[in-house]
Parts: sequence; C-alpha cells; structure tokens
Amino acid sequence: MSSKKSIKLGLLAKKIGAKFEGDADKEVLGINTLQDAGSKEIAFLTRSSFAKELESTKAAAVIISPENKELAPCSIIEGKDPYLLYAKATQIFKKLNQNKDNLNNSDYLDVASTAKVHESANIGPFCRIGEGVVIEEGVSIGSNVDVAESSKIGKKTIIYPNCSVYEDVSIGQECIIHSGVTLGSDGLGFAKENDNWIKIEHLGKVIIGNRVEIGSNSSIDRGSVGSTKIGNDVKIDNLVHIAHNVSIGSGTAIAANSAIAGSTIVGKNCTIAGCCGVVDNIKIVDSVHITAMTLVTKSIKESGTYSSGTPLMQNKEWRKSAVAFKRLKDFNSSPK
Amino acid sequence: MSSKKSIKLGLLAKKIGAKFEGDADKEVLGINTLQDAGSKEIAFLTRSSFAKELESTKAAAVIISPENKELAPCSIIEGKDPYLLYAKATQIFKKLNQNKDNLNNSDYLDVASTAKVHESANIGPFCRIGEGVVIEEGVSIGSNVDVAESSKIGKKTIIYPNCSVYEDVSIGQECIIHSGVTLGSDGLGFAKENDNWIKIEHLGKVIIGNRVEIGSNSSIDRGSVGSTKIGNDVKIDNLVHIAHNVSIGSGTAIAANSAIAGSTIVGKNCTIAGCCGVVDNIKIVDSVHITAMTLVTKSIKESGTYSSGTPLMQNKEWRKSAVAFKRLKDFNSSPK
Amino acid sequence: MSSKKSIKLGLLAKKIGAKFEGDADKEVLGINTLQDAGSKEIAFLTRSSFAKELESTKAAAVIISPENKELAPCSIIEGKDPYLLYAKATQIFKKLNQNKDNLNNSDYLDVASTAKVHESANIGPFCRIGEGVVIEEGVSIGSNVDVAESSKIGKKTIIYPNCSVYEDVSIGQECIIHSGVTLGSDGLGFAKENDNWIKIEHLGKVIIGNRVEIGSNSSIDRGSVGSTKIGNDVKIDNLVHIAHNVSIGSGTAIAANSAIAGSTIVGKNCTIAGCCGVVDNIKIVDSVHITAMTLVTKSIKESGTYSSGTPLMQNKEWRKSAVAFKRLKDFNSSPK
Repeated sequence: MSSKKSIKLGLLAKKIGAKFEGDADKEVLGINTLQDAGSKEIAFLTRSSFAKELESTKAAAVIISPENKELAPCSIIEGKDPYLLYAKATQIFKKLNQNKDNLNNSDYLDVASTAKVHESANIGPFCRIGEGVVIEEGVSIGSNVDVAESSKIGKKTIIYPNCSVYEDVSIGQECIIHSGVTLGSDGLGFAKENDNWIKIEHLGKVIIGNRVEIGSNSSIDRGSVGSTKIGNDVKIDNLVHIAHNVSIGSGTAIAANSAIAGSTIVGKNCTIAGCCGVVDNIKIVDSVHITAMTLVTKSIKESGTYSSGTPLMQNKEWRKSAVAFKRLKDFNSSPK
Repeated sequence: MSSKKSIKLGLLAKKIGAKFEGDADKEVLGINTLQDAGSKEIAFLTRSSFAKELESTKAAAVIISPENKELAPCSIIEGKDPYLLYAKATQIFKKLNQNKDNLNNSDYLDVASTAKVHESANIGPFCRIGEGVVIEEGVSIGSNVDVAESSKIGKKTIIYPNCSVYEDVSIGQECIIHSGVTLGSDGLGFAKENDNWIKIEHLGKVIIGNRVEIGSNSSIDRGSVGSTKIGNDVKIDNLVHIAHNVSIGSGTAIAANSAIAGSTIVGKNCTIAGCCGVVDNIKIVDSVHITAMTLVTKSIKESGTYSSGTPLMQNKEWRKSAVAFKRLKDFNSSPK
Repeated sequence: MSSKKSIKLGLLAKKIGAKFEGDADKEVLGINTLQDAGSKEIAFLTRSSFAKELESTKAAAVIISPENKELAPCSIIEGKDPYLLYAKATQIFKKLNQNKDNLNNSDYLDVASTAKVHESANIGPFCRIGEGVVIEEGVSIGSNVDVAESSKIGKKTIIYPNCSVYEDVSIGQECIIHSGVTLGSDGLGFAKENDNWIKIEHLGKVIIGNRVEIGSNSSIDRGSVGSTKIGNDVKIDNLVHIAHNVSIGSGTAIAANSAIAGSTIVGKNCTIAGCCGVVDNIKIVDSVHITAMTLVTKSIKESGTYSSGTPLMQNKEWRKSAVAFKRLKDFNSSPK
C-alpha cells in the first residue's frame, strides 16, 4: 500500500480516450466514489442524480459527460459515456499496481512430464498439472488448482486459486476464472433399469471461448457426448450452474445463482438476471433478456424481455393473494 | 488421444445386453450423436423424431429399438430401451479409455499416522488425511482434498479435486463426489440471547449411502445432534444445499441449485427439479416429483407431482398479470 | 471416539447457567435427541409436542422449561429458554472434545517473507499466505487455503479447508469461514463499447466484522470502488452470493442459496430465508424478514415480513391457476 504507484491526470485521460481540462500534471493514485474520493483520487459522475455529491467532492478530477461538466469543482475527464470511461480507468489503475508476484518459484508443484507449460506462464504452489495439458503464454494460475489430462489453457488466461479443471476442457485466451470454479464435472444423467439408476458416463468436453469470465464457485458440466460450449465474451457470475451439452452464445451474461439445464441453447447477447432457471432441451434466440428469478420453461423464439413470478408484497397481503391464486383454477373454465 | 482404444461392435453389443445385426468385427472408438458421429463411432436413436438424422448418419452402428431398426443405414445394436443401452455403452467407452494415473507417487501428502489407507487406494498430491480416517480398497481421491478426523471413505468411491470432508463423515461404497463439494460443514443454527446469536455447535455426523453421486460445489451440512443422512443411490446435482439433519430417501434425485432446509425428510424415489426450495422440518413421502423452481412450504403426504410459481410471459404482459395478482387479495372474501 | 471426554451433570448445568435437579455427579459424554439419547448423554425438550418422547427417553438428564419439568423421567437441567440452554450445551461438548491438532508442523507451506503470522496461529498444509498478510493470535486455517496479498485475519477466526481469500480482504475476530468460501472475487461489472463488454476492474475491498459465520461454498465479491461490508454477527448460510459493494447490517442472517445483487444495502437484524433474490442498488431497512424464495425488487422502507411467489399445489391444479394467471392481465383495466 505504501508504495502505490501514481499516474498523471493528463496521461490517464489520454489513455482512456477522454478530453481533459485542468491540472494535467497532478498525480493520482486511484479511483473512488464522489463522496469517498480523496485529493489523490479521481471520481466519476454517471448519473445526474449524483450532482449534489459532485459539488462537494474532494477528488482531483472527475469523469463526466459534456452536459454536466460545468458543475465540476475540479479537473475534468470528459466523454459521452462516463460509465465506459470509468471502466477503462479501473483498468489503468489495476495495471498500475498489479502485483508481479512470481509464483513460479514454488517447490510444491506436481506437473506431469508430458504437460507443455509455456515458460512465461505463472503457476502457484500446490497445483497439479496432468498429462498432456497445454498451458500457453502468459497464463497465470493461482494456488491449489488441478488441471487434468489433455486440457488446454489459452494465452493470458487467469485462473484463481482452488479451481478444478477436469480432463479435456479447453479454455480460450484472456479468460478469467475465479476461485472455486469447477469446469468439466459430469452432468446429472441417468437411465433407469428396474428402478435402479444407471449412470450415463460423460465422455464429452467443455469448450470455452476467448475473454470469458466465470464467477467464483460456478460449475460447468462436460458434455455427455459432444461438448458444452461457452461462446466468446460470455460473462458468468458466481454460483451459476451450466449443465451438460448447454451452448451459450457469444456476449451473453448470466447473473448469480442461475442454472441452465441440460442441452439447452442460449443465443448471443442475452442477459439472464440472477436466480433464474432455464429448463433442459430448449432454445432461446439472440438478444433475449430474462428478469430475475424467472423460470424459463419453453423455447423463446422472439427477442425481448421475459418474466415470471409475482411482485413483492407485505406477507399479510401476500397471503390473501396467494390463497386467491389457488382458487384461480376454478375460474379457468369460465365462458369467454 | 492418439492411442484411443477400440472395441468390436459385436463385443460391445454383447456387453450391454443388446441384439446385434451387421459387421460384428468392425472396431469403434466412441459414441456420439447421429449427426456428429464419424465412421469409427456408434450413435443412438432414443426418440423417433430423430429419424431424419438417422438416414444420413455416418456412424458405424446405431443403438435403436425394434420398431425403428429398418430405418438404420448401418449396423444395429437393438433393444427395447435404447436410452438404457446408451447409458451402458457410455460406461463401456469410459472404462476402455480410463486413465490409470498412479497419483500415489506424490511427495506432497500429509497423512496422519493413525489414518488407515488401503494399499490399493489412490490419493492425489496436496491432500491432507486426518487422524483415524479410514480409506478403503480402490478409493480414488484427487488433488487438494482434505479428509478430516475419523471420517471414512467406502470402497471404490471417487472424490474429485478440491473437496472438503469434515470430521466424522461416512461415505459409502462406489460414490462419486465431484470437485468443490463440502461434506459436514455446520448448519445455520443459532439461539438468541438478548438479541445476540448464540451458535449451536454441530456435533452430529453426515452418513452417505452407497452409489451416491454429488455434483460439483454442492454442500451437505452435518447434523446438529444426530446425523444428516443421504440414502443409497441418491443423485445430487451441482450447487445443491442439504442442511443439517436432513434425510434423503434412497433413489431420490435432486437437480442443480436446489436447497433442502434443516431436519426435513425427503422420501424415496423422489425427483426434485432445479432451483427448488424445501423448507425446514417437513416430511415428503416417497415418489413425489417437484417441478423446477417450486417452493415446498408444507409436508407432502401423497405421492404425485407438485408445483408453484407462474408461467413464463413477455415482460410487458407479465407486468399486467403481476399487478392483478396484487389486487387478488381483495377478491378473497367474495361469496362462494 | 474411544477417548471421548465426559463432564459431570452438575458442572454442565452450572456452566450454561441452568438450575439442576438430580444426580449431579453423573458423567455424560454428549447431547442427543430425546429419542436417540443413551444413558451417557443428555437431551432437550424445546417444544411440548415432544412430551411423549420425553417419557421414554433414556437420557441421563434433559434440558427443560419449568412448566414441563415434572414430566421428566431423569435428572433435569432447567431454564426458561431450553433452546438457548441447548445451544450453550452444544458449545460445552464441542470444547470438551475439540481436536487440538497442531497443523503447524507442515513442511508444505508457502508463506511470504513479509507476512506476519502470530506464533499461536495454526496453519494447515498446502496453504499459500501472500505478501503483507496479517494473521492474528489464535487463528486456525485449514489445508489448501489461499490468503492473498495484504489481507488480514482477526483473532481466533477459523477458516476451513479449500477457501480462497483474495487480496485486501479484512476478516474480523472470532469469525468462522466454512470450506469452499471465496472472499473478494470480482463482481460482474462491465460497460459496453460497440457491443463489446469492457471489464470494470474491481479495485475495492471486502470488510468483514467480528463473529461472522459464512457457510460452505458461499461467495462474497469485492467492491468495484469502495468496499463490500459484512457487519458484526452476520450469519450467512451455504451457497449464498453477496455481490460487489453490498452492505449487510449487523446481526442479519441469510439462508442458503440466496443472492444479494450489487450495491444493495441490507439493514440490521434482518432475516432472509433460503433461495431469495434481492436486486441491485436498493435499500432494506432494519428488522425486515423475507420469506423463502422471495424476490425483492424494490427498496423496503418499513420493517416487517415480505413475500412473493405462489403456494404449493398439485401440478394438475397448479396448471389451471397458472393459465388463469396469464389471463389476469386482461382483467387489469376493469372498472374499480
């Protein structure tokens, strides 16, 4: 913390493609909210409703849109999309202070002799790297990660500690896999024989594209036959379940605690909010948006926004509506 | 991959108890869908709706029912239940190519002196095996697994990497525990004393039967007093929560992201679909089926299928129904 | 197990602040249910409905309220709140038999030279402790845990195996973090630039108070800018998602499989039951109770109990009500 690096405001603005007005040589250490920013930090105004906090901010500079800029009591970093500039600024500060730990000096590694690990890759202690695994240039793997036989980790991908990558899993380039993620576990697949479950062995793969981010403690099952496929630029939150043979189209985002059941195909550029369920063997087209805690029980053939559930109510009132819901069944056959 | 082993079609059919017609000496390497199978793979037809794909398949043979067999353009592997034959075939191919890694040569193990590990058991690197643990014949444990004091792992059970088995957990024979599973954590149990939470220590156990499969990143809490019990042949999917003192009857299957709250008893041969919740201290009889994202708030005394929730709708329409749901409370006291 | 320690009934009662009648010198080994307790165990009666089991219990003593005590066939441990006494008794038995494993003798540790680990702290094998980490007095860390740069673990906190603590995470005193927990992963935050996701780097922290318990396989994301805050005495169950910049007030409990979305503020002494979702950027006041599988879509300004969803029904009946729900939209514009 003591040795935090700084960047000049003018250079920062240039790097994120913004216009700048003010003290370009002033050095800053980080980014914060308007309210909490100190004099060596920048802040950002993404909604006009924060204009009050803008007046009193102590930030050295503020990321702001042209229409709000006259309100700023400090240097300004200006652009049409302040939220995007904010995202880019976080990337600058992240790189500025990035820890360049060389994890690779560990004595505690179990790397199979047939694994191909690029010399620039960084592997933490207590990792097992199986036979035939390929780990490309610039990959970073945290401690206690298991990468099983024949899996491949693409360039510059980051895997955080305590992840499990089963055999035959292919991860693309520049992915971020957070702690506790499991990739390639078996799906829940069984046939019945005289009331006994007969396991369907999962012989398929998991294929993950480039720039995919997967949140902590999420699970992606392998295909039974064929593959589970996660497209480029898919963003998956924490505690998400992706079942066997699911296909997620590029650019789709799935929020926390949602589950996609087996063999379902989700289109491109969809957003699935938190706590949703999507049943098995259905198809959702591109650009579909599912609101939180919705259950998708059938294929969606038209892009748009879809929902299920009931609104939040005080429990006392809700109980009455809930009882009435049960009685709705009797009104169903009423004349049209 | 290059050294993948093959099996003759005739032998394969015999091993799975199917009739065979065609080139019995033809060797195959794996199983795939009708559409994707190559000439050294078999495929399967489980629904007649795939008959079109059957005509053009390149598979060497197809698993098929008697009524569809005349449509096959290749050798046939015939039986009344093609889905069951498919399951059995996946098991043949799984065994054929099973990796016989000897993980046991690791220098990086921490095994307590009082632990009894069978000489045929296979334990990956970076595992801790606590005092008094018993690991039986043919057990396989992946890397980075912790098995705490006095726990027992039955014959031929497989535990994948990064699992945590707390003390006094008993796992039966031929179980499969996927990565990231926690067995034996404390339940959420507290008493209140002057607005302070007083922790109820969980002194009980977890007892898991034979042939149980538990999906990745699932959690099973130990009993507070007494045990959490998972019956034989129970199949649990990913990210499932089983609370303290729950009992799950044999043959029951629970799909992903579902949660069963404390002390609830679920009967035999039930199926609980994904994203369900079951409240605490209730009892569900045998052969109950719960549809996806249902909340079970009371005991179920009759077998059958149960549901809650509302259907998927376009958001615009759903908003209207949702508002009407709120107003339903006022219709409740209407004359009958 | 063979060497389980015992405690005299009179001493036990005294330690938990209860009145005692009976054989004070009788030694007991543990606590169990009325039904399952043996002659060297105590039991407890928390609800009068168990009075029948009380008559036939073999327990050496029973924790009981004054109004039920004449029914006890054994020694009695008496108090107004038997459930609280039960909680305290579990703590006595837990301590009595606590394993005092010295994990610290491991050869397999990777501790950075700048980390400050108190000499009384107990760290299991296969842990990585990063640069500048502070581990205070009496901390216990299980195997395969990663604690990244500049994080701090307060006095007497217990971290179970396979947890991941990212950089700049502060955990208070006497916390219990169960296996598989991830603290400090990035939130799901992105800006859009020409249909591409631009990652918002998460530069903030996680700050966890004292006496917080976090259930297995739960995930708490770090702040984007600013911190994610978990107040004192918060109790979080298994598989719970806490997003970036969320704030949870002291004394609040959150049950399994629930998810709280980004920047939401939850008040003090709230209870959120299992399988709930709370959307982003809202505020819930103190002493709010959310029933199971409720979706909270807006700020709650008054304490009380809140719900959403529909009641459990037989599937056949539910289908009719569900169809009627869809038609409710047309009744919405009816005259008042």
